[in-house]
Amino acid sequence: MKLLIPGPVTTRPEVRAAMAEDIAPWDNDFRPVLVEVRERLLPIAGGAPDTHSVLVLQGCGHFITEAALRSFLAPIGHPNAGRILIPAIGAYAERMARLAREAGRDVVTLALPDQVPADPQAVADALAADPAITHVGAVYSETGTGVIHDVAAIGAVVRAAGRRMIVDAVSAFGALPLDVSAQPEIDAVVFTSNKCFEGLPGLGFAVCRLAGLEANKGNAGSWSFDLQSIWEMGLRSPGSFRFTPPVQVLAAFHKALDIYHAEGGQPARLARYRANVAALYDGVVALGLEPYVARHIQGPVVMNVHAPADPAWNLQTFVDGLKRRGFLISNFYNTPTPSFRVGCIGAITPDEMRDFVRAIDAVLGEMQVRRRARQPSAA
Amino acid sequence: MKLLIPGPVTTRPEVRAAMAEDIAPWDNDFRPVLVEVRERLLPIAGGAPDTHSVLVLQGCGHFITEAALRSFLAPIGHPNAGRILIPAIGAYAERMARLAREAGRDVVTLALPDQVPADPQAVADALAADPAITHVGAVYSETGTGVIHDVAAIGAVVRAAGRRMIVDAVSAFGALPLDVSAQPEIDAVVFTSNKCFEGLPGLGFAVCRLAGLEANKGNAGSWSFDLQSIWEMGLRSPGSFRFTPPVQVLAAFHKALDIYHAEGGQPARLARYRANVAALYDGVVALGLEPYVARHIQGPVVMNVHAPADPAWNLQTFVDGLKRRGFLISNFYNTPTPSFRVGCIGAITPDEMRDFVRAIDAVLGEMQVRRRARQPSAA
Repeated sequence: MKLLIPGPVTTRPEVRAAMAEDIAPWDNDFRPVLVEVRERLLPIAGGAPDTHSVLVLQGCGHFITEAALRSFLAPIGHPNAGRILIPAIGAYAERMARLAREAGRDVVTLALPDQVPADPQAVADALAADPAITHVGAVYSETGTGVIHDVAAIGAVVRAAGRRMIVDAVSAFGALPLDVSAQPEIDAVVFTSNKCFEGLPGLGFAVCRLAGLEANKGNAGSWSFDLQSIWEMGLRSPGSFRFTPPVQVLAAFHKALDIYHAEGGQPARLARYRANVAALYDGVVALGLEPYVARHIQGPVVMNVHAPADPAWNLQTFVDGLKRRGFLISNFYNTPTPSFRVGCIGAITPDEMRDFVRAIDAVLGEMQVRRRARQPSAA
Repeated sequence: MKLLIPGPVTTRPEVRAAMAEDIAPWDNDFRPVLVEVRERLLPIAGGAPDTHSVLVLQGCGHFITEAALRSFLAPIGHPNAGRILIPAIGAYAERMARLAREAGRDVVTLALPDQVPADPQAVADALAADPAITHVGAVYSETGTGVIHDVAAIGAVVRAAGRRMIVDAVSAFGALPLDVSAQPEIDAVVFTSNKCFEGLPGLGFAVCRLAGLEANKGNAGSWSFDLQSIWEMGLRSPGSFRFTPPVQVLAAFHKALDIYHAEGGQPARLARYRANVAALYDGVVALGLEPYVARHIQGPVVMNVHAPADPAWNLQTFVDGLKRRGFLISNFYNTPTPSFRVGCIGAITPDEMRDFVRAIDAVLGEMQVRRRARQPSAA
């Protein structure tokens, strides 16, 4: 079964095989695994040990996102209370806003169209209009819409305005480029084990600016989600977790990083994902289906396709049909209008994507769903 | 390698083998796994679906403990702000106090000796002296000292005083008996995947009283740690997680529950762990070592042994020597005075414990550590 979902992704058998042992996380033979994972992730983000640190947290993308928000943004009522502006560009931006709001942080959102990258000028205008905004929360790859947002361009306006930035790069980092050294406005970039690095789910990561960690000690209001506490543990013992981790997931992630580097790192992974999405985009257009966003906007991580406007369409039936053919896609969608969603990341090749397109064709035929006549202008 | 640590524990190969597949958590073929895990845990806690619900959270014991504290105890400044009394009986009671305090909860501790079970009368007196206390936070098995506390007796005084209770049963539940139906004062019992159920680490569980969930909606101050939000997701879709789980860990836990029931459930597991600790207690006393607590106090989960008072003693050297013989114990201790700690839980038999005692003897010999002369009264 190939998982064509934006996480958990399809992994290589060697990665899953790394989970077959019982492991004590604090064992001196295992501690180097955590040290190496932290050391190897840092340059991928453009970080260096004297300015940034990679911190590892148990759990999912929501958890590491909440931890970053708490650890860098003081809550309402705190002497250093901040305010975060979150461009509302999809389900994962909404997630960040909700996580911050429920953690007692002051959140303002900026309504923007969801089918194109967020306009940096709109962010600049919002910052100019409200001097109380201290932070911007940006989503790099909107896992809802599949649109990639220009974190460098948004960061430039944040930097120019003297504000700070927190980046949700969960479904982007590892494939899309990132350089925290060139973007000193970024306090934290968060991501997880089970997206573009092609590991298993269970761990979150944050690449954090040391100066930001230092300046915001004591903000978190949660021991579990206190990135400064994780950082301090790392200073005392770089290979130690504070609390019991899903240690098999870490062992698998270490193996996944070996494969990542053997493949050629970030450029190679991005090239493969781009080839995956190109094969898919061409394929679905040829089948008479309508992609959710225009081709020049379509990112390499997630592709949404409008649900066919035929009463015979049923998402679960479609998903079940694909599954019988060896492909699993999400049985829900995150777009405002009905769609189906395909993850183009994971241990998947363009040839497999073409097989997948043939499976779509077969299942739609089985379901007797009519596609619209192919419009030459739609491509 | 046998892990003789109080978690992650040694698991059976079939349990680890259940992690070998890529899995989509929301797949209709996988959702029943979560439903079954929740359904099967409930009666082990003495719960029924009309009064209690089993909720599952990504992460470690700290996370599920913080989630329970947040979700049942309103913070300082909230109109329904509570106060929690935590008997200070060891490292894990301190952990609960710190988690609550950093989450902005009003915490009072009650100093008690750490080498004997907490005195229920002392708890009753503390409750009588401070009517502002709304909750008691109790640790069932102190993973630091190895002492088992009488949650039923403490619960009886909490109930009599009309207060509520949150139980950290992380290293107890599954082996030690628990009956939430007989203890309506308990709002939540928390535990994890990697202790007495002999699964892998990565998930926390809470058995929650429905009336308590209902009465405390909106208390959490954290979307990630909001048990009411997890409960509501379960009402809409009992087999769904809100956020991506470490799904291989759940698959392994499901397999571990099969083995648990095949072994004979809680009584059988407790009997095996008791036999493990008896073999260990007898063995170390015969070697001239001194257990941290008296035999009638010693619980079946963790046994601490005083470090030999010989300058040749070195914990890491000892741990390394045992490891060369196939046994891994913690290379740190949680007691006020130097000790070594042995986990007696996990997929381990009394015969393996006797092998382990022989390994201790050999390593101490190698290290030239003198044990004290055997005192007949010490047993």
